[in-house]
Amino acid sequence: METTATAQVITPEHLLKHWQGHRNLTRRIVDAFPEKDFFEFSIGGMRTAAQLMTELLAIGAPGTKAIANRDDSTYTENTQTLTTKAEYLQLWDEATEEINHYWNLIELEDFGRMFKLFGQYENYNISNIFYFIDNEIHHRGQMYVYLRALGVAPPAFYER
Amino acid sequence: METTATAQVITPEHLLKHWQGHRNLTRRIVDAFPEKDFFEFSIGGMRTAAQLMTELLAIGAPGTKAIANRDDSTYTENTQTLTTKAEYLQLWDEATEEINHYWNLIELEDFGRMFKLFGQYENYNISNIFYFIDNEIHHRGQMYVYLRALGVAPPAFYER
Repeated sequence: METTATAQVITPEHLLKHWQGHRNLTRRIVDAFPEKDFFEFSIGGMRTAAQLMTELLAIGAPGTKAIANRDDSTYTENTQTLTTKAEYLQLWDEATEEINHYWNLIELEDFGRMFKLFGQYENYNISNIFYFIDNEIHHRGQMYVYLRALGVAPPAFYER
Repeated sequence: METTATAQVITPEHLLKHWQGHRNLTRRIVDAFPEKDFFEFSIGGMRTAAQLMTELLAIGAPGTKAIANRDDSTYTENTQTLTTKAEYLQLWDEATEEINHYWNLIELEDFGRMFKLFGQYENYNISNIFYFIDNEIHHRGQMYVYLRALGVAPPAFYER
């Protein structure tokens, strides 16, 4: 990634660090769930934490890779059956490395380019990237409530 | 705000639009609450939607104003007693205008500057701005669960 003398609202490096800080918090939230509740607990008919994590795993690293490779293949969630939190955490850690790798292949000029992500979501790359981050925060907020309802004190939101 | 020929990861104008899109969704989430439940319902000992909104109102517009004015006055929540959703929505709409106004006084070079927000949170301005946005998404995710638990179908997350 080239640096530039012109001021940036946020640099690519800073935005990656920001996202990975959020991803680190999400990891600790998953880790805070009792094993059984991670797969079974929900409120008001919403998805379980495991189901939400399946979605997040299908978006973050695959989306970053798709943007870097300009590959508009369709969205697919993992159909492999994961039965332990440890498996989710391992895939999460693999995604961390994958995001770091593909992020560095995205050029500064690419962030403002239009792209049909997953063959469906036509938007500026930066807007789709914000969707990855915001959607993770949104669902993690939901998981915070699940934890509180289960009597588990979650890690503080501002610790990354 | 001056435009520049150098590519931006995200422009100030685009980031403002992104945030106001989120704020518009938050407004609709508040509006979706039954009046009584907005002030009384909670899960797991967490704050009510009204209490969360009091926090968000104390952060977004005051924080943007503080950054624009380089004013490090301390954080204060509104101690005025609000008793209706309509009053919250009115303050929210006033904050929308205030954010638009003060955002346009922030120079491109300011986003990467360090500043002790609310006399306490020393960080890059862009990091504190992301905190405003992310914290709103986080607490709104919590409000989504409250609505679902109350049997109310909330607006879709991707509608802004």
